[in-house]
Amino acid sequence: MRKTLLVFLLFSSSLFAQDPLLGFDTASSASQRELEAEFDSHLSAEDLDEWLRILSREPHHVGSAAGLAVVEFVADKFRSWGYDTEIAEYEVLFPSPRTRELELVAPTRFTASLTEDSLPEDPSTSRTDDLLPPYNAFSTDGEVEAELVFVNYGTPADYEILDRYGISVEGKIAISRYGGSWRGIKPKLAAEKGAIGTIIYSDPADDGYGAGDTYPDGPFKHESAVQRGSVMDMPTYPGDVLTPFVGATSEAQRLPLEDAPTITEIPVLPISYRDALPLLEAMGGEVVPSEWRGGLPITYHLGPGPARVRMKLEFNWDMVTAYNVIATMEGSEYPDQWVIRGNHHDGWNHGAADPISGLVALMSEAKALGELAADGNGPKRTVVYAAWDSEEQGLIGSTEWVEHHAQELDEKAVAYINTDGNSRGFVNIGGSHVLEKMANEVMRDVTDPQTGVSVAERRRARIEVNGNAAARAELKSRSDMRISPLGSGSDYSPFLQHLGVASLNIGFGGEARDGSYHTLYDTYEHYTTFRDPGMIYGVALAKVAGRATMRLAYAPRLPFEFTGLADNIALYVDEVEELAEDMRSQTLETNQRIDSGVYQLALDPTRALVAPLHKDEVPFFSFAPLRNALDELEKAAADYSDVAKSGGAANEQQNILLYTSERELTRVDGLPGRPWFTHHIYAPGFYTGYGVKTLPGVREAIEERQYDLVSDEIFVAADVISGVASRVRALSD
Amino acid sequence: MRKTLLVFLLFSSSLFAQDPLLGFDTASSASQRELEAEFDSHLSAEDLDEWLRILSREPHHVGSAAGLAVVEFVADKFRSWGYDTEIAEYEVLFPSPRTRELELVAPTRFTASLTEDSLPEDPSTSRTDDLLPPYNAFSTDGEVEAELVFVNYGTPADYEILDRYGISVEGKIAISRYGGSWRGIKPKLAAEKGAIGTIIYSDPADDGYGAGDTYPDGPFKHESAVQRGSVMDMPTYPGDVLTPFVGATSEAQRLPLEDAPTITEIPVLPISYRDALPLLEAMGGEVVPSEWRGGLPITYHLGPGPARVRMKLEFNWDMVTAYNVIATMEGSEYPDQWVIRGNHHDGWNHGAADPISGLVALMSEAKALGELAADGNGPKRTVVYAAWDSEEQGLIGSTEWVEHHAQELDEKAVAYINTDGNSRGFVNIGGSHVLEKMANEVMRDVTDPQTGVSVAERRRARIEVNGNAAARAELKSRSDMRISPLGSGSDYSPFLQHLGVASLNIGFGGEARDGSYHTLYDTYEHYTTFRDPGMIYGVALAKVAGRATMRLAYAPRLPFEFTGLADNIALYVDEVEELAEDMRSQTLETNQRIDSGVYQLALDPTRALVAPLHKDEVPFFSFAPLRNALDELEKAAADYSDVAKSGGAANEQQNILLYTSERELTRVDGLPGRPWFTHHIYAPGFYTGYGVKTLPGVREAIEERQYDLVSDEIFVAADVISGVASRVRALSD
Repeated sequence: MRKTLLVFLLFSSSLFAQDPLLGFDTASSASQRELEAEFDSHLSAEDLDEWLRILSREPHHVGSAAGLAVVEFVADKFRSWGYDTEIAEYEVLFPSPRTRELELVAPTRFTASLTEDSLPEDPSTSRTDDLLPPYNAFSTDGEVEAELVFVNYGTPADYEILDRYGISVEGKIAISRYGGSWRGIKPKLAAEKGAIGTIIYSDPADDGYGAGDTYPDGPFKHESAVQRGSVMDMPTYPGDVLTPFVGATSEAQRLPLEDAPTITEIPVLPISYRDALPLLEAMGGEVVPSEWRGGLPITYHLGPGPARVRMKLEFNWDMVTAYNVIATMEGSEYPDQWVIRGNHHDGWNHGAADPISGLVALMSEAKALGELAADGNGPKRTVVYAAWDSEEQGLIGSTEWVEHHAQELDEKAVAYINTDGNSRGFVNIGGSHVLEKMANEVMRDVTDPQTGVSVAERRRARIEVNGNAAARAELKSRSDMRISPLGSGSDYSPFLQHLGVASLNIGFGGEARDGSYHTLYDTYEHYTTFRDPGMIYGVALAKVAGRATMRLAYAPRLPFEFTGLADNIALYVDEVEELAEDMRSQTLETNQRIDSGVYQLALDPTRALVAPLHKDEVPFFSFAPLRNALDELEKAAADYSDVAKSGGAANEQQNILLYTSERELTRVDGLPGRPWFTHHIYAPGFYTGYGVKTLPGVREAIEERQYDLVSDEIFVAADVISGVASRVRALSD
Repeated sequence: MRKTLLVFLLFSSSLFAQDPLLGFDTASSASQRELEAEFDSHLSAEDLDEWLRILSREPHHVGSAAGLAVVEFVADKFRSWGYDTEIAEYEVLFPSPRTRELELVAPTRFTASLTEDSLPEDPSTSRTDDLLPPYNAFSTDGEVEAELVFVNYGTPADYEILDRYGISVEGKIAISRYGGSWRGIKPKLAAEKGAIGTIIYSDPADDGYGAGDTYPDGPFKHESAVQRGSVMDMPTYPGDVLTPFVGATSEAQRLPLEDAPTITEIPVLPISYRDALPLLEAMGGEVVPSEWRGGLPITYHLGPGPARVRMKLEFNWDMVTAYNVIATMEGSEYPDQWVIRGNHHDGWNHGAADPISGLVALMSEAKALGELAADGNGPKRTVVYAAWDSEEQGLIGSTEWVEHHAQELDEKAVAYINTDGNSRGFVNIGGSHVLEKMANEVMRDVTDPQTGVSVAERRRARIEVNGNAAARAELKSRSDMRISPLGSGSDYSPFLQHLGVASLNIGFGGEARDGSYHTLYDTYEHYTTFRDPGMIYGVALAKVAGRATMRLAYAPRLPFEFTGLADNIALYVDEVEELAEDMRSQTLETNQRIDSGVYQLALDPTRALVAPLHKDEVPFFSFAPLRNALDELEKAAADYSDVAKSGGAANEQQNILLYTSERELTRVDGLPGRPWFTHHIYAPGFYTGYGVKTLPGVREAIEERQYDLVSDEIFVAADVISGVASRVRALSD
């Protein structure tokens, strides 16, 4: 069975391969394919493995000696491959820990170790000279002592449950597990609710022995492992906390430290499950709801207390230099059209997976493109390879560079292709839907190293087996697979959501879940044992990201397409309508139940849980402006689709109109309450952090029950969609 | 809000209360209500508490001295209340443990303690003279040594997953957690799959610290606690293993021990999670699927091995005497129409919850009825109170009595009302749907002791808050709440499923989950602290079961009704049709996926999990015979409903036709492969054990993919339904 299948797939895929590529005509498609085959031949798993070993040898965070060595190694490589390479420097605020103390003071005493064990099985874990100990960057300084309250993942929904138990975190320390939302949301919400401190721990059910064998027996979290990470309020703005909107050059105007709005209100500290166990075990109060239970061998309780902890955190609030490596290969035809390909280089520690596994793919791509250029086949558009610094603290290197060069990028940036850590399994592409069709063509043209079918085919198979009914039905009804909209969490954010540069974020995953993320155990040994032995998916990533970059850099007509955009926006419009409908009917139903008294009868009178609170009813909103604008876009997109299929080259002006189309999705005044985020189709959620909110102005106004904002936001979003529709219409005229 | 609501509810319920009761006219309804109020006035929580304390003082299993003392205490009470009381004795096989050894022999060594800790906080746990140590009754003898395989709950679905991992239990020892199916299914299936032994443990996620605070801090399983229990193959037949179909009198013909088909094929032993931890920790192989993870602080693996255990079990295969207490109050008008009310008296250990909490309610009812009789208001029909022995080993006391008196019961038994352990919260009634309307009237007429509304109203509120959309919709569309169909697990089985005596099983629960079941910790202290402090739900149970018994014993027209039966059978017909449809489409879809090769592409090639096996496609079946029979029943039931509402008394012959209507749902040749089970609407599942299968012949033929049986079983079930339809029609003529 299997053999027949493979032959069939290869056959059908080679048939497809004869179709012209989006943006190319038949002849230029053929030469592009030859060029890509040539490109592939320069990629080498050995290169990736060697660079991974070298670059993840030492902890190399921003401001460290090892970090600078990484910068120099990468810059030297780019130079050796023929790139015009500069190191862009920014002066940024970098808090590192000076005091970290956590102790249980009642009803028993315990002092948390706050350190990770070096393991004899992994020599990297003993190279810790430049090690940043576990902490959350941009926690405020503070010393607090209070009873603990268990807040599960610390999401808004979790606090609603606590309310029903009559439990407040006011004046308490919230202990939360990692997961459920981006970590920075946990202290943000806890502070809004009146907590005076937050502890975040990795529960073994989510990320430890419950998930699978632990390091070094398996890839999951060692009992001493701690996930570091930034808790900067990135949904307000990422980048250097002192210089929002402007590049953090030495002469930039800076906010006073005490006015920086993206530093947490309350101290926050991440700990291991080994350190969390005595704290949680000492808690009392009601037993947690069943979905809140973790994997420690105890009964979890909500508190407050009797467990009482003292936590003291002090940081060095230093200014350090962030170094971005910017390597440019000028385009032969359109030097002022820039295709940017980036990955950060700084790690929380050794950073083998995050970020070096992605960086070495990028380097491999740059080396291969350098070879093509040396053979006289360099790109038509300028290609910029960027290795960003200080991503871990809050996308700082990329954000400062984007803010610094905003005007030039607004004119010249065609697209931004991002990677970060890589892994094994299935290709994941998220990004701007103007690039969805190109992304699908790319996935169709790269072979999966484990199965021999295309990475697209393998992804389809996974949806076929694991997807829900709707996703499976769509495989039949829709020629392209959807790419996911982008929230935040890596360096595409400033490009996409601040400037409106069409972006993609690419990686493989799904077959190598692990717990090394932001711990001492994210090492070469861990990566090559558990994530991508043989670096075969590193090479596959270079093929995917390399093709995306090259098609943008060589296409006579930029491979932008708008039917996918229209179709995805249509989905989001359906979603926000359904959201309002569902909230309306659920609010009504819950209010009716509250009023009828059934909660009092259904709930155990001997326990604390009470009925939920009455909520304001949800009014009806008119989504017609969105529907009308969408209708314009759908028609214009269909017309342009015919133009694109004709295969004719575009002139320079047309190409500029194409790549600046994403700018139409932004508004200079940004989203309500967070002007830095100008994109009105994709944004990180204000209360999810990394998680995307599509049509964010409309969706968050509904979710936050700010009903008076909804109609205005519908008009704004409709206006933005209308704007891009006009642009697309202009392209077909 | 609350007050208004309560006033409204009391008002509406008192309005309803003026409607005649089913089976009574206006005048007799009023006197019946007075009688029930009088009955209630004789119930006393102090009685219940005192009897509970006395009867659960010592472990009192069948064959024990304490067990005989319980029998004598109960019999004396019945006599003192004016009952004609006899002790019905049966000679039954009772295995008790002689040797219990379990040790891990590789890769490390550990000897399981197999004992439960006595706790200073609970003096009962130190009264262990007659204690049965943890074991599974009717495990075969044996000494085995083999590697362990983790089989999750050991259900058919679990073995399908193991197949996909390429793991067989052939020649291995299966380690399974309690839950997911009745315990006896675990060794039965493991043996069918070739295992040579089975270990069953209580996982703390399901029943230990994961579920809540553990004893004595809370009600859940102490780390040393072990759930005992029978593993007799009850879905084949319950009762004494040597005397199927006949009462185990001293002169009964007996099977040779070695031919007894309901003893397990392989040795099986239950253990605590404290004893399970070292065994599971020593296992290797693939990590279990995420839904299979338990609550121990380890990574769970499937095996086989390297953990290797030796298990040795030897039992005393003794004949002992089981004593049923049978207390009769003869009916004044219809002495040959018997309303039987039973609860077992034997416990695995102290048995405070199981069974004494139910038995003391029954005793309280008997005392109250005795007072009514003493006042000259005795029942019109004969009421038989039964306290069964040896329920725990396999419904032995009740089954032998039923088999022994089968012919007399066939003629005289009006209905059987069962209770077993009781708890706190919401009323649960399961049983014959001919009694559904009466059950609803009873629930409407008893007040919940915690909230002051009727137990019906409280149950409706719970469905309103926790039920799914269908259940909530039904609250509005259906005047009666559904009572659940009965599978097995208590003494109603021989009455209902062997003889076709309409039965109810009644208890309260839902607010006091605990882990004392069948452990050393099922004590007076545990029960009165965590399950029903003040015995208020014990009194409520006596009111509910007492009313059910009294309405059957006093009604001029027996309160049987058939629209509920028709409506529930209609639901089951829908379900089996949907089952066939779903299996057909799922089989087709899975087979197509297997054939298309997507599994190979979607699954991680470095791991053992492979595609499921191709299955035979499901043919189309004609359910028309069921639909036609159901149509007859619906019409006849509607007609009889009018007769019943007219409120006229029935004559003796009509009442006999009414109560023997349930016999029409049986067939003398029983279910395929298990002739003891004669009921064709309700049966315990052959592979679920306690879990009910409605329309069992049809449903199990489909589920087991025995497609050639399905049409025959449809005809049989249709014939049975047609039979009851004819009976109901005769009642209206």
